[in-house]
Amino acid sequence: MLRFIVLTNPLNTSTFLYLCYMRKFALAIHGGAGTILRSSMTAEKEMAYKKALEDAMIAGEGLLVKGGRSMDAIEAAIRSLENNPLFNAGKGAVFTNEGKHEMDASIMNGKDLMAGAVAGVQNIKNPISLARAVMEKSEHVFMAGLGAQEFAKKINAEFMPDDYFFVQQRYDQLQEAKKEDKMILDHTDKEKKFGTVGAVAIDQHGNLAAGTSTGGMTNKKHGRVGDTPVIGSGTYANNKTCAISCTGHGEFFLRAVVAYDISCLIEYKGLSLKKACDIVVMDKLVKIGGEGGLIALDAKGNIELPFNSEGMYRASKKEGEDLFIGIYKD
Amino acid sequence: MLRFIVLTNPLNTSTFLYLCYMRKFALAIHGGAGTILRSSMTAEKEMAYKKALEDAMIAGEGLLVKGGRSMDAIEAAIRSLENNPLFNAGKGAVFTNEGKHEMDASIMNGKDLMAGAVAGVQNIKNPISLARAVMEKSEHVFMAGLGAQEFAKKINAEFMPDDYFFVQQRYDQLQEAKKEDKMILDHTDKEKKFGTVGAVAIDQHGNLAAGTSTGGMTNKKHGRVGDTPVIGSGTYANNKTCAISCTGHGEFFLRAVVAYDISCLIEYKGLSLKKACDIVVMDKLVKIGGEGGLIALDAKGNIELPFNSEGMYRASKKEGEDLFIGIYKD
Repeated sequence: MLRFIVLTNPLNTSTFLYLCYMRKFALAIHGGAGTILRSSMTAEKEMAYKKALEDAMIAGEGLLVKGGRSMDAIEAAIRSLENNPLFNAGKGAVFTNEGKHEMDASIMNGKDLMAGAVAGVQNIKNPISLARAVMEKSEHVFMAGLGAQEFAKKINAEFMPDDYFFVQQRYDQLQEAKKEDKMILDHTDKEKKFGTVGAVAIDQHGNLAAGTSTGGMTNKKHGRVGDTPVIGSGTYANNKTCAISCTGHGEFFLRAVVAYDISCLIEYKGLSLKKACDIVVMDKLVKIGGEGGLIALDAKGNIELPFNSEGMYRASKKEGEDLFIGIYKD
Repeated sequence: MLRFIVLTNPLNTSTFLYLCYMRKFALAIHGGAGTILRSSMTAEKEMAYKKALEDAMIAGEGLLVKGGRSMDAIEAAIRSLENNPLFNAGKGAVFTNEGKHEMDASIMNGKDLMAGAVAGVQNIKNPISLARAVMEKSEHVFMAGLGAQEFAKKINAEFMPDDYFFVQQRYDQLQEAKKEDKMILDHTDKEKKFGTVGAVAIDQHGNLAAGTSTGGMTNKKHGRVGDTPVIGSGTYANNKTCAISCTGHGEFFLRAVVAYDISCLIEYKGLSLKKACDIVVMDKLVKIGGEGGLIALDAKGNIELPFNSEGMYRASKKEGEDLFIGIYKD
């Protein structure tokens, strides 16, 4: 699309008129996949989830529509989901076996393949922003545990007290999980849910970005790392191919290197985004027992939201088109 | 190759004669890459490295020659390298900023794509065996920090006191690194080395396996995770394609998802192992500034040992052929 852009040079206040080829932006988010059935959902709960997804979309879209960067848009969308207790990330993170909240996140910039990730961080309000700080303010890509905590202090990340993360329903889930002595992938009312949030976007400059954030598994033993903080498995972005954010049973997503697999099927085998997603989510993952889904967006702005579970909280929007919000399979 | 195998059934002591198609086994190992120059090496040091590599090869080959599994062979070879203070893994792990030893390792079975990994573990004699235990004795793939430590205690992993890991040269490296206030990728005598050990193998049953283990970076800040424990980046194995173990500047290997990239180039683009290694190590990694190398072995038993640094401690052997040991580029 040909657009006119008026740029003001702050140094001499002169105004330039540019003619630029700008792409249509697109944004997609997810709030986790799993056994999300219409039959076990109340109208009130459904409304709350849809509102939360819409809020996150608005946060990201608001930046993209003004020509903002995809990195900023996905961070804003994920922060919105992290700040909402409905999702298993940030404020709504599930309880570990020790009654703590251990969170993981990762982010990747498709323009330069820069990436950042954190695993096992506690009391961080927005793990996605900490992952971005690892990318931008450290010489590392991946930081874990106490070291990541110390880094967070050094860069003045926003910390919150334990009670900020206390959600009664999550606490009840922990008690139930402990009673059964099993680890639960963020379940509600006997549902099995893979609680993760994520976003992918392409901005008007044609740059892709992806990010993912999670509170892990209820009653999980201290130290388990899933696919969320792993570049290539839970998150991947490359302007040449696509941006991917996953949600599902992390162990299978790690073994299948899911996010990069989709990128490789596009780059090396010449598949469409849709075909690549179908193969990885509906065939390869199913064969090894890997339940879950992902959101995907390619360099042409195509969006795919595949999942092999009963449902996935998801939303997407292409510039000039209507907002889509989905929860169930049908 | 057609071989006669005599199997004794322990239950009824009867003896069977089997005719089986058995493949030729092959094994390759590395002990890290970096600025390893002939000019800065003494004959004595060179001998010590070659002996250490040979010992590790013998440990792995001894199992493969008897029809043992590639998983067992790579674990044995890596344990031998971990037990040798010359290499930055296990006993020879470098000091962190806090004067500790934080080690990472991962292992993958090409037959069933099962995998295990640990990050940031302390006082573990053989991190590679702990990674294998995560794979075989937990429901997880990846465990980090104190949680991985607790898991190690639960499965009775071998712990060693701090002084087992004390190597004077490593301690001197830390003091020098602290003086310069920089993190050093395992350097010796002004050399820059990416200290990691790893092994890849194919056994007579045609099964591939790969494993990697490291002590990280001298003076590294607590919590940095490199590519070594990341399935897809530092380690990957798949009977359909290849087995890979990497050594290099981990941040670049993470961003490039190096190990799985080679597998995808073979599977999706139909490239040979050699061509795939050339593209990833000598072109893609070089372009983003990622120094290092890897060892690779495909399902046909081909071996590649590419590196873009000055040298890489490496050894390989195909059944019926001579042992190869290399250090420098030429």
